[in-house]
Amino acid sequence: MDIATLRKNHPDHWMKACAIRALAMDAVQAANSGHPGMPMGMADVATVLFEKHLKFDAANPDWPDRDRFILSAGHGSMLLYALLYLTGSPDMTIEEIRNFRQWGSKTAGHPEYGHAKGIETTTGPLGQGIANAVGFAIAEEAMRARFGKKIVDHHTWVIAGDGCLMEGISQEAIGLAGKQKLNRLIVLWDNNNISIDGPISLSDVTDQHKRFEASGWKVLSCDGHDPVDIDRAMTEAKKSDRPVLIDCKTHIGFGSPNKQDKAAAHGSPLGPDEIKATKEIYGWPYGPFEIPQDILDAWRAIGRRGAAEREAWEARLAALSSARRNEFERQLTGAPPRKLAATIRALKKQNSDAQPKVATRKASEMVLEVVNPIMPETIGGSADLTGSNNTRTGDLGIFEPENRKGRYIHYGIREHGMAAAMNGMALHGGVRPYGGTFLCFTDYARGAMRLSALMGVPVVYVMTHDSIGLGEDGPTHQPVEHLAMCRATPNTWTFRPADLIETAEAWELALTSRRTPSVLALSRQNLPTVRTQHTNRNLTAQGAYILREAEGKRQAILLATGSEVEIALKARDILQAEGIGTRVVSMPCMELFAEQPEAYRKKILPAGPVRVAVEAAVRQPWDRWLLGERGREAKAGFVGMDGFGASAPAERLYKEFGITAEAVAEKVKSLL
Amino acid sequence: MDIATLRKNHPDHWMKACAIRALAMDAVQAANSGHPGMPMGMADVATVLFEKHLKFDAANPDWPDRDRFILSAGHGSMLLYALLYLTGSPDMTIEEIRNFRQWGSKTAGHPEYGHAKGIETTTGPLGQGIANAVGFAIAEEAMRARFGKKIVDHHTWVIAGDGCLMEGISQEAIGLAGKQKLNRLIVLWDNNNISIDGPISLSDVTDQHKRFEASGWKVLSCDGHDPVDIDRAMTEAKKSDRPVLIDCKTHIGFGSPNKQDKAAAHGSPLGPDEIKATKEIYGWPYGPFEIPQDILDAWRAIGRRGAAEREAWEARLAALSSARRNEFERQLTGAPPRKLAATIRALKKQNSDAQPKVATRKASEMVLEVVNPIMPETIGGSADLTGSNNTRTGDLGIFEPENRKGRYIHYGIREHGMAAAMNGMALHGGVRPYGGTFLCFTDYARGAMRLSALMGVPVVYVMTHDSIGLGEDGPTHQPVEHLAMCRATPNTWTFRPADLIETAEAWELALTSRRTPSVLALSRQNLPTVRTQHTNRNLTAQGAYILREAEGKRQAILLATGSEVEIALKARDILQAEGIGTRVVSMPCMELFAEQPEAYRKKILPAGPVRVAVEAAVRQPWDRWLLGERGREAKAGFVGMDGFGASAPAERLYKEFGITAEAVAEKVKSLL
Repeated sequence: MDIATLRKNHPDHWMKACAIRALAMDAVQAANSGHPGMPMGMADVATVLFEKHLKFDAANPDWPDRDRFILSAGHGSMLLYALLYLTGSPDMTIEEIRNFRQWGSKTAGHPEYGHAKGIETTTGPLGQGIANAVGFAIAEEAMRARFGKKIVDHHTWVIAGDGCLMEGISQEAIGLAGKQKLNRLIVLWDNNNISIDGPISLSDVTDQHKRFEASGWKVLSCDGHDPVDIDRAMTEAKKSDRPVLIDCKTHIGFGSPNKQDKAAAHGSPLGPDEIKATKEIYGWPYGPFEIPQDILDAWRAIGRRGAAEREAWEARLAALSSARRNEFERQLTGAPPRKLAATIRALKKQNSDAQPKVATRKASEMVLEVVNPIMPETIGGSADLTGSNNTRTGDLGIFEPENRKGRYIHYGIREHGMAAAMNGMALHGGVRPYGGTFLCFTDYARGAMRLSALMGVPVVYVMTHDSIGLGEDGPTHQPVEHLAMCRATPNTWTFRPADLIETAEAWELALTSRRTPSVLALSRQNLPTVRTQHTNRNLTAQGAYILREAEGKRQAILLATGSEVEIALKARDILQAEGIGTRVVSMPCMELFAEQPEAYRKKILPAGPVRVAVEAAVRQPWDRWLLGERGREAKAGFVGMDGFGASAPAERLYKEFGITAEAVAEKVKSLL
Repeated sequence: MDIATLRKNHPDHWMKACAIRALAMDAVQAANSGHPGMPMGMADVATVLFEKHLKFDAANPDWPDRDRFILSAGHGSMLLYALLYLTGSPDMTIEEIRNFRQWGSKTAGHPEYGHAKGIETTTGPLGQGIANAVGFAIAEEAMRARFGKKIVDHHTWVIAGDGCLMEGISQEAIGLAGKQKLNRLIVLWDNNNISIDGPISLSDVTDQHKRFEASGWKVLSCDGHDPVDIDRAMTEAKKSDRPVLIDCKTHIGFGSPNKQDKAAAHGSPLGPDEIKATKEIYGWPYGPFEIPQDILDAWRAIGRRGAAEREAWEARLAALSSARRNEFERQLTGAPPRKLAATIRALKKQNSDAQPKVATRKASEMVLEVVNPIMPETIGGSADLTGSNNTRTGDLGIFEPENRKGRYIHYGIREHGMAAAMNGMALHGGVRPYGGTFLCFTDYARGAMRLSALMGVPVVYVMTHDSIGLGEDGPTHQPVEHLAMCRATPNTWTFRPADLIETAEAWELALTSRRTPSVLALSRQNLPTVRTQHTNRNLTAQGAYILREAEGKRQAILLATGSEVEIALKARDILQAEGIGTRVVSMPCMELFAEQPEAYRKKILPAGPVRVAVEAAVRQPWDRWLLGERGREAKAGFVGMDGFGASAPAERLYKEFGITAEAVAEKVKSLL
């Protein structure tokens, strides 16, 4: 629909949509950076969505049963900020809009979760939002199965652009959603035929309808500038028994006389002259950031549209038994159940005595076997390595269209999609997701794992086969740099437990975390119990602790994690036999150790004794601890990997790569 | 087709295919690990391919005009090893087969490029092979456009499984191949309906025919156990004007009485009893690793099938002018042109004088403007950030179906697919690929970037917007941990040049590398020329060097890279003004510095003076240089990032995060 017809036939709609467009143009111009073209293109679709379909109450942007609105095309952030401001979301003032992309504002270049309520997830890296949305929709289904339709009954709406659909992660999301028949998931495709380099045809010929239909989606189309047609498509979408793609045919930079339909509209300010010309075409005679009162009032009324529905929902929630209501709120806020600490303690105590020799991936399963029954909010899964990751426990059941109470997801061979879906579940609330693959394949999930950390959502990555100990599958499957990568990532707890006890402690920390994701790096191979003395206290919470003290004068400190703690203990035996007093420090989580008071860190790693670390991975993260945080603390050495692994049985690899107790003892002696 | 019919109607074919199956079962059993099910399922398809279609000459497995055979489903490595052995490839003996998955063998758990000729690429991480293959097919087209059909005229055949097709990277590959109409690319889909967790229906409902057709592929089907039907489909595929998917309906673990069609056949030895029973069903009465002479002879004849064709090709090559022939061989082997060194020197000299203030991404473009005209083998591209990555120079032209001489590829928003395609081009030979995105989005390409390093292929990643200097786009687009990640990866040169001179030197190293990929981390923001004294020598080749010496007594050494070298120089001014003698070391490549002789490293970083490093990224990779390789060398400090960035103008961010000359000077003084 062209602008003249729109203005004539739908004047009220038009002016509301223009308010979005004007704010987007003005804010990008004021910041002298940003993306005006997408908000200008999708303003009509968004206006109809918020006016007629989205279940929300602007004054209460965290109402649990609201529809979720995900801007997967995050560069169009001004669309979201404008909608939040116009509808009257309390966090979003006109000052924030004026401060778009400035230090300290809530209006970052791309939507940042936590900056303002109503920003449901952090987007910008393309394809993440649509894959998050799959997780949102899964969480909604799971919560509905637990608490009933009166309490949980909402949709997840996504705006995705061509960039989102070209990223591989979108295929993983589409496939997972199609299999799961997530009919509460509705994706609005901003089909404007433009990417940064130019027309889509430069790089793609994909028929998206056919592609989505191939994975079991329903596909609808509408003129993305015709409010009646948009409304029709959305109404139909809500009746679908499958996830829905609505192909919204739009014009990027709609109405800009010189930039509409051009890549130039995508990522740069239009310029004052072009804005002036565009506003003239719009019939929008207002200055920068100026929204006339009648139009603002109309938007604010939209913002209040869902208030009665929210109140009715609150009444229904209040009508639940207090136990049910408390449980709903506990799950939603992510508080761990009271029993968790005691359950972990009991498991630790029992196994400090029993001292099983199991792989930490198996230990992880043993933890989950006692945790899952008391945490109905967990949803586990694996990217098609269930039997290897040991992520499925007996009581979970399979989450599928026929069983929404199932708590185990076969994600398929989709590490990136799994990680992003877990982010979505955690953001939705009510679900504590964990998912597994091999540690090496964090490479495939990295884009979403970074966002777990940036957003601060406590998902748990169960990453097994964490070194050359994987053996015969060879270097493509053997992580060597991945521990360094996880540890280099801010706000990520990288746990590498040495035995079942530390594994239980790591899980306890991961499952009680509120703002930090966890990576559990777990062994394929069996490991002895090294923590044979039970403590109620969670020693892993300190990041590192003295596992065995030196006998006699302390001349050396060995540091190790995971499967190499056993090697460090054997090296200590060798050294002590030669009269070299040797302390062994187990360091299951460097990040938590770094957060300890300096006094504790100095107690564990006093200056003076030679330090040698052993880990079947690259040295990079160790230098800080070996060399001392300020330098000059100790002579130091490292036993580990300095290149890729190889294909052979694990024991042979440890020997060939020189990661042995003897090598550790020799290294110490060479430094004394 | 069932086994009885096969044995009756196609006895010769059957026994040849059984030779593959038997070797796969025997080798996996002997190793007590591996994946027998896939080779057993695809043996008929592979036999027909090698017997009737694949252009190859086993005795000359690196004949440049051979068809490429890519085992994307790399876990089925025994299929490839068996084929190489049976056809008589010189690197693959029965001893190697017997030593499957053992230390030092060529027969790693997954195919490793470089272990034996005939292994065209390293596969195992799923989806990589099919995405490499797109690069192989692009390289073939590009070389054919340069040297003509008489010299370059081959196909790329891929075996891909459901896992490959579920990974997101496959969608990127399919989309790129479809757009590029790569009709020499034929993918044989091992459609056995099984993944590790069980039936595909557990996780996917995708109609693959519809999905591939949606991206412009031709789709054919065959009974993957009927040699006539397989032959028909392959014959038809070679006539296509588009890339082809052949849906080969197969049974995993074909013929195994208890494991066929089950996940159990995928990744474990069948067991001696099951192998015995299976061999009985096959009518294969031979012991482990035993291939009767007549069957071996039949296979060896297949291996010689292409000898005449190869000889004819060699005659055609010999008939070229010696200049053409030399150029063909130079490009194929990856030798840089003679002029390169002089060209880089001239650019350096000119700009040491001119001292431009440009972003290093712009500097990179200035280098490419002089390099691309003298290196016809370069193929540049970007994942839809051409104008930001500055990867396109004037002379390149666009590579597309209508212009195979074009040397610039619009990869679309497909970072992972781009990286894997570049690996494929480099492996094919004749092409030196480089491609760009933002440094932050190495997260999306990590899976393929690791394989560049593991395989040792010298692709160049042009990663711009390399810090918070990116500014307003915010933390989703600002790398902080990515330099650490690249540096943690073995066999990867991470260059972070400080100005145009270092950028030119980095490019020279990247373009002359034979076995190491390069990451160029380049600034968005303008940087002054800091190397104002011209040297012919490439100082970046030493990894780090003295950029400014201390005046007076040397009390401090500042280390910096890229955009922070300017800050270090200003800090030096502050310190020298206070009489604190300060050396500035520019460190554009830590990996190359680590390779220098100890004497050089000690010369650059003598023990004693305080060391402070400044880099707008996390500290992890710096500790080694700050604290000294053996510890106890110096008091040290770091000025950089310890968390994620934020959205604001770049200068404000540097100030807010405390990455300033003043902060560096203060840090030095606090340590003196």
